[in-house]
Amino acid sequence: MSIVVVGTVAFDTVETPFGRRENVLGGSATYFSTSASFFADVSLVAVVGEDFPEEHVDFLQSRNIDTAGLKRIPGKTFQWSGRYGYDLNEAQTLDTQLNVLMDFHPELPESYRDAEYLFLANIDPDLQMNVLEQVRKPKLVACDTMNFWISSKPDALKNVLQKVDVVIINESEARQFTGEVNLVKAARQIIALGCKRLVVKRGEYGVLMFTAETVFAAPAYPLEEVFDPTGAGDTFAGGFMGYLANTGDHSEEGLRQAIIFGSVMASFNVEDFSLNRMKRLEYKEIQARFSTFKALTNFRNITF
Amino acid sequence: MSIVVVGTVAFDTVETPFGRRENVLGGSATYFSTSASFFADVSLVAVVGEDFPEEHVDFLQSRNIDTAGLKRIPGKTFQWSGRYGYDLNEAQTLDTQLNVLMDFHPELPESYRDAEYLFLANIDPDLQMNVLEQVRKPKLVACDTMNFWISSKPDALKNVLQKVDVVIINESEARQFTGEVNLVKAARQIIALGCKRLVVKRGEYGVLMFTAETVFAAPAYPLEEVFDPTGAGDTFAGGFMGYLANTGDHSEEGLRQAIIFGSVMASFNVEDFSLNRMKRLEYKEIQARFSTFKALTNFRNITF
Repeated sequence: MSIVVVGTVAFDTVETPFGRRENVLGGSATYFSTSASFFADVSLVAVVGEDFPEEHVDFLQSRNIDTAGLKRIPGKTFQWSGRYGYDLNEAQTLDTQLNVLMDFHPELPESYRDAEYLFLANIDPDLQMNVLEQVRKPKLVACDTMNFWISSKPDALKNVLQKVDVVIINESEARQFTGEVNLVKAARQIIALGCKRLVVKRGEYGVLMFTAETVFAAPAYPLEEVFDPTGAGDTFAGGFMGYLANTGDHSEEGLRQAIIFGSVMASFNVEDFSLNRMKRLEYKEIQARFSTFKALTNFRNITF
Repeated sequence: MSIVVVGTVAFDTVETPFGRRENVLGGSATYFSTSASFFADVSLVAVVGEDFPEEHVDFLQSRNIDTAGLKRIPGKTFQWSGRYGYDLNEAQTLDTQLNVLMDFHPELPESYRDAEYLFLANIDPDLQMNVLEQVRKPKLVACDTMNFWISSKPDALKNVLQKVDVVIINESEARQFTGEVNLVKAARQIIALGCKRLVVKRGEYGVLMFTAETVFAAPAYPLEEVFDPTGAGDTFAGGFMGYLANTGDHSEEGLRQAIIFGSVMASFNVEDFSLNRMKRLEYKEIQARFSTFKALTNFRNITF
C-alpha cells in the first residue's frame, strides 16, 4: 500500500563530536521516505530550489520513491545547520535558512490523493491540515511537530492532532505542549485533545506508545557508535509507517511491531552522517536487528 | 535462602514538589531489606545512634528482617537531607551528617557468615571489601556505589568490583567511573575490569543489564504519580536480590525476571514518601504489576 509524506528536503550542515559534514542531504521527508521505502511504496511532497542536485533526486527514485510531488522552484533549497554535544541527545540549531520553504504550498498530484497512509512531517500545522484535506480517504494518518509550532501555533496544531490517528513527538515536546512534567499525565492530556494514539520519542531511551487504555515501552537499541542523530525521528516514523502500510495490521500488536521496526531503522540511521547508513543498508540487516531487539527486551512471564 | 545487606539506616529529610518530610526513616539498608523481605529472609548490618526509635526496629522485625547486625552506638543516627526538582531525576543533597556512620566498622554476627546472598549497599569500598571477606561462601554478591567513592577511592572500588558478581550503579556513575560518554562502551569497560554483570539504573528510563555477551533492557513503569524517588535504587536492588534468593535461578532468564521484580518494587516505592508505600504494599499488588510490566513491553516476534 502507498504512503504519502509531506515534509522538508534540505541541505544539512552537521557537527558532532565525531566530525562535521557540510551541505549534505537531509530533511524530514528525505529521511522518512528513504526509511519507509524498505517496506512500502512512498510518494513524496516537498520543495527544493534550483541548487538541488539531480543526483539526490536520482537516489530517491532509485528507492522507488515517487518524486512527482517534489517541486523545484526558483531560489535556494532549505538549509539547516546544527551541532550536537557528547550526549547527542538534543541538537543545538546554529542556523536555519528557510529559502524556498517560505513559498511552500503543498499541492498533491492527483495520483497521490488516494493514498492510504499519510505522514505529515514537521511543518507549519496549517500546511499539515491543508495536505490532510487533499487526501480523500486515508486509512491511517500520522503527524510530527516541533517546539516552534507548539509555541507559535498551538491552536492550529490542536486542530491537526484531532484529525490524525497517531501523533509522534519528542518527550520534551509532549511536556512543553501540555505544561505537564509527568509524561504519563502529559500523554493523557494530549490523547484527551482527540488524538487516538500518541508515540513519544525519548532518543537513546526509546519510545513510549500510549492510547487511552494501553501503554507500550520500547527501548532504543544500545549502540556503541552513534555518529549523528540527525533524522533519527523521521527515520523512526518511516519504519513505523512503512511497516504498517506493508502489513495493513492496525491492531495494538501490529502497531507494537511497527514501533520496533521504526526503532530498528532509527538505530541504523544514527550510525553514520546524513543518509549514508540508509544508503548501504540491506533488508537482511533489518531482520537481524529486529531479532536482536526481541532478545534485548524479552523476559519470561511468571505464573504465580 | 538468606540475604545479608550492609548499608545505612538513616533519618531523611526530603523535599519534592509534592511535599516535605522531616527525619523520616530512610537509608540504603532499610530500603533494600524491606523490599527484599517480600521474597526472602534478610539480615541487616548497619549502625544507628541512641536517637533511633524502637518503632523503626519493630517495623523491620515485623518484616522478618534479622536485626542482630543492627548496632546501636552512642551518638546520633546518620542524617541525609535532599531536594528534588520537578523532573525528580537527581537529588540535590542539602546536608549530610554522618554522625555514628563515622565509627561504622561492620562486624557480621556469626549467624550471618554463611549467607548465600550478599548486597554491599553504597558505603566506603574499604568497608564493602571488609564485609565481603567476612562471608564464607556466598553464592551471589552484588554491590552499589556512588559518585563520591568513584572520585575519592577509585582503586578500592575497583578491588570490590572485581570480587562481586553484579555491580548495580546509576547511568551517570557508569559514565563518571569510565570517563566514557557512550553507555555501551562504559559498560564494556566496567565489565573488562572484572565484574561479571553490570546493572545500569536510568531512573524513569528503566534499567540496562550487561554481561560480556548479552544486553537486557527493561523500562521503568510509567507512573502518573511519583512523589519521592528516595530509595528507589535500593528498593530495586532489594527486589532483584530478593527474587534471586527466592528462586536460586542465576541464569540469564532468571536474572532478567529479577530485574523486572526489582523494577516493580521501585515503581511502588516512589509512590509515597519514605517507606510508606512499602509498609502498605501487598504481595498480590506485586504480582499484578509484574503482569502489567509484561504487557507493557511485550511485542510479537516476526518470522521473516
